[in-house]
Amino acid sequence: MTHRLEAQFAFLNEADRLKSVLRATTLVDGSRPENSGEHSWHLALYAMVLADQAAPGVSIDRVIRMLLVHDLVEIDVGDVPIHSANGQAHASAATMAAEQKAAERIFGLLPADLAHSFRALWDEFEAAETPDAVFAKSLDRVQPVMANLMSGGGTWATYNVTSDQLDARVGSKIARGAPALWAWVRDKTRAYFG
Amino acid sequence: MTHRLEAQFAFLNEADRLKSVLRATTLVDGSRPENSGEHSWHLALYAMVLADQAAPGVSIDRVIRMLLVHDLVEIDVGDVPIHSANGQAHASAATMAAEQKAAERIFGLLPADLAHSFRALWDEFEAAETPDAVFAKSLDRVQPVMANLMSGGGTWATYNVTSDQLDARVGSKIARGAPALWAWVRDKTRAYFG
Repeated sequence: MTHRLEAQFAFLNEADRLKSVLRATTLVDGSRPENSGEHSWHLALYAMVLADQAAPGVSIDRVIRMLLVHDLVEIDVGDVPIHSANGQAHASAATMAAEQKAAERIFGLLPADLAHSFRALWDEFEAAETPDAVFAKSLDRVQPVMANLMSGGGTWATYNVTSDQLDARVGSKIARGAPALWAWVRDKTRAYFG
Repeated sequence: MTHRLEAQFAFLNEADRLKSVLRATTLVDGSRPENSGEHSWHLALYAMVLADQAAPGVSIDRVIRMLLVHDLVEIDVGDVPIHSANGQAHASAATMAAEQKAAERIFGLLPADLAHSFRALWDEFEAAETPDAVFAKSLDRVQPVMANLMSGGGTWATYNVTSDQLDARVGSKIARGAPALWAWVRDKTRAYFG
């Protein structure tokens, strides 16, 4: 019989590879692209700090856990920048199928009970229907906006994004889970776009 | 009056700098040093996956929150490798004073209520007395051991660490919060040291 810890560490060692998946967004200081591991940490910290922006009944502890696992499929699939052509192709069937396969493989490294609960958490995030998932998605959308504001444009400059495009692609999703947060951030993005 | 969100984002944007603090330990694949932001993410995932190694009564959600903030003082102070001369100088008064000052500054960016709760969580981790903090410390110690095992020696080779030194400096601390985990990992480190 294989020791349970063998499966737990097979997963934890594989998860390490998320630190090598690069995103389009840079660090706040613009020095280099952010990776999806440190991005996931930053988002979990966002959940702790911005808890008062969540709708009543949202469990911040569940949101944190969701954010810690939400990008793991990128180990196989990579990050799809939201302002890129692919990001705008509204969840192509090919990308969604690849992510499902990645979830099967990566969460499947865990012992069965954990594989099940981690996969359920990722499925919930992806579906973006429960209040916890909707708030988690809002944080996932607002963090790159702040990074772009801090670094002087970032991926908005890269992809020639307009203020209206930002409102439509990103703002609407932030507003869904954190309306007051988006109202405050939108003032800053409008000042940036001038 | 300054908007509460200004203080929340002053902290979140400052926290971004933890992604630029480099540790002695490398990624599992040995490709580059790990940074303290992605390290904090990996540890929070360790807590989720290794929850069954914690003593009864440990709150994994509190452990996760503790691990998310435990290294933030390194933005000012940097990481002190455990096997380095400084790491062995048992918490020099100068290092401890610098970390206290860093905690004051960094958590002090937050609105007062959050500054207080985040600081309390960090103080609890540092004191390593409560069951939650003891388990969090065990995870913080075991993760670099796994990275060294996976990358073929890592900081043990860098600092000429012996098996006995590893047991004394690291094993004893892992065993305190997660004895069964250390028993399993120790078999692997002994096989490595041969």
